[in-house]
Amino acid sequence: MFDNKGSKTSLAELGEFGLIEHLTRFVELSQASTKKGIGDDAAILQFNNEEDVVVSTDMLVEGVHFDLAYMPLKHLGYKAVMVNLSDIYAMNAEATQITVSIAASNRFPVEALEELYTGILLACKTYKVDLVGGDTTSSTAGLIISITAIGKAKPNDICQRNGAKPNDLLVVTGDLGGAYMGLQVLEREKQVFKVNPNAQPDLEPYTYIIERQLKPEARKDIPTLLKSLEVTPTSMIDISDGLSSEIIHLCKNAKVGANLFEEKIPLDPTVISVCEEFNIDSTTIALSGGEDYELLFTINQKDYDKIKGNPNFSIIGHITEEKEGMHIITRANQKIALKARGWNSFEEDEQENK
Amino acid sequence: MFDNKGSKTSLAELGEFGLIEHLTRFVELSQASTKKGIGDDAAILQFNNEEDVVVSTDMLVEGVHFDLAYMPLKHLGYKAVMVNLSDIYAMNAEATQITVSIAASNRFPVEALEELYTGILLACKTYKVDLVGGDTTSSTAGLIISITAIGKAKPNDICQRNGAKPNDLLVVTGDLGGAYMGLQVLEREKQVFKVNPNAQPDLEPYTYIIERQLKPEARKDIPTLLKSLEVTPTSMIDISDGLSSEIIHLCKNAKVGANLFEEKIPLDPTVISVCEEFNIDSTTIALSGGEDYELLFTINQKDYDKIKGNPNFSIIGHITEEKEGMHIITRANQKIALKARGWNSFEEDEQENK
Repeated sequence: MFDNKGSKTSLAELGEFGLIEHLTRFVELSQASTKKGIGDDAAILQFNNEEDVVVSTDMLVEGVHFDLAYMPLKHLGYKAVMVNLSDIYAMNAEATQITVSIAASNRFPVEALEELYTGILLACKTYKVDLVGGDTTSSTAGLIISITAIGKAKPNDICQRNGAKPNDLLVVTGDLGGAYMGLQVLEREKQVFKVNPNAQPDLEPYTYIIERQLKPEARKDIPTLLKSLEVTPTSMIDISDGLSSEIIHLCKNAKVGANLFEEKIPLDPTVISVCEEFNIDSTTIALSGGEDYELLFTINQKDYDKIKGNPNFSIIGHITEEKEGMHIITRANQKIALKARGWNSFEEDEQENK
Repeated sequence: MFDNKGSKTSLAELGEFGLIEHLTRFVELSQASTKKGIGDDAAILQFNNEEDVVVSTDMLVEGVHFDLAYMPLKHLGYKAVMVNLSDIYAMNAEATQITVSIAASNRFPVEALEELYTGILLACKTYKVDLVGGDTTSSTAGLIISITAIGKAKPNDICQRNGAKPNDLLVVTGDLGGAYMGLQVLEREKQVFKVNPNAQPDLEPYTYIIERQLKPEARKDIPTLLKSLEVTPTSMIDISDGLSSEIIHLCKNAKVGANLFEEKIPLDPTVISVCEEFNIDSTTIALSGGEDYELLFTINQKDYDKIKGNPNFSIIGHITEEKEGMHIITRANQKIALKARGWNSFEEDEQENK
């Protein structure tokens, strides 16, 4: 199968996406019920003709995906569920069940895991999702949370990543960049705390973005809203790695290009002001920040009237022929190629603590 | 929810089963499609009336569940899939898909993960199960594998843990204790190797039990065989923690008792001879060894003729009224209460390396 015995390639060389692609390139599908395997937000299983089942899984590792110095365990439990439900909603499906596996070192007392589960169960209750299974085991170091989410949808409603067509409109929900800037504020406070443990930070002005980081909400409302508007996106993905990388996913999967308009990217005023405070370009943060768990989708132009003016949606660009490439049109009317600079869990740089 | 803030209970105090029960006692189910949540080998989901979906998940942690000193990565990948498929077959269902999440520290080169995936994909191919999703991320220490298995079955075929009735027969597939004794041999060789790295061990006489430990096979054949014999067990469970603890599970779930006959417990000749070599009682090993991934089930007495003499099955006892308790009847005709001494991932004794 793999034929490079003896050589040693570090995980960082391939990166997360490259590694998954590399390891799964020999996967063969043999079950009639597997409609779509690896390569989308969730797998699509068809056990009957009425309703498809969608399945997605995500693993969160202490020291890689979260830092317990500023992430309370209850929030962590809640967020871990959100990350997974977001993938189900990105299929335009309804999330119905999750399983949760936890590995925790002995430094965690039972009460710490109770905190974690309180957050998990709060998420389940709020999102009407059933916790139906899991595993709890010890680890030699740290805390690892692995969640699998299951959902359902009518076959015709499901949105994959590959359906975008030239002239489709590019739409995003909510606003972007908040989760990343929230993390920057928390990182800064952690450094201040290290120097002076008695410092009393005033985090009030940052409430919105800290909440975006610590307690994100998955967009359960969007599949329902789209149905009521009678809009079925031609493709959809959730924004976990930053707008730029998600646009590139949709374009590559559908073999199309895209034009994104900088001035149309939705930003919360807090994000704009904190970006100024940190002297960072807010567009860069929206493009590369990640962890916003908003949804990015494409719709046929005929559906424009159905979503225009809806405060949940921002039309940020349109799909083009593949040969035209993927670009952002800046406020200064410059055309710049889009680059994926999303979260890479194997990168050994400052991103590693993201 | 949990109301014991401030106190600190170590994970070992509750044990694995106690901890899962403790953490999930506030779980509420709200989805109509959740037919059975936590508490069996797999959850049962009903998205339509034709076929139920079953879902199970298991996590394997380096240093807790496996030791890479004697577990080749390819075998580890294979075994990780088996552990999960076994739970699906224990529902009398057909396994159809898995998702695989891996966290690996940077000490693992890509080639090591390729080895792991080679084993995972071999298992998928052999068992006709599709790998449909997953996550690959870095860890701060060691290797963690989290797998979720999905299967399907007609609602009437599914066997839960709670259906045993007094006078039912207690049946087990294959033979027991091999995986545990295989581990003992491997542990001994590891110690010898530490003292003398040039020692050339002759493991030939131990082939069967080492294979039971390193490359177990889940009993995919049993649901098919039972169907062809027109036998639907009244309850079923897979033997991951040792016969004793699994019998107790079936009895407690069905509120019944059981008599197990020592002389009927199926043992391979290798297990008997290696137990003599290690001066361990082979019955104790069969009762508490675990990791055999055989199936334990109960059938109505009317089905006795359908399975008697079948080399895949051993009738090892029968179900009694709850008040009679759970006992093993020894070869010397003594009646001894059954105790759960299965694998406990939080126990801090010699079991920890199991």
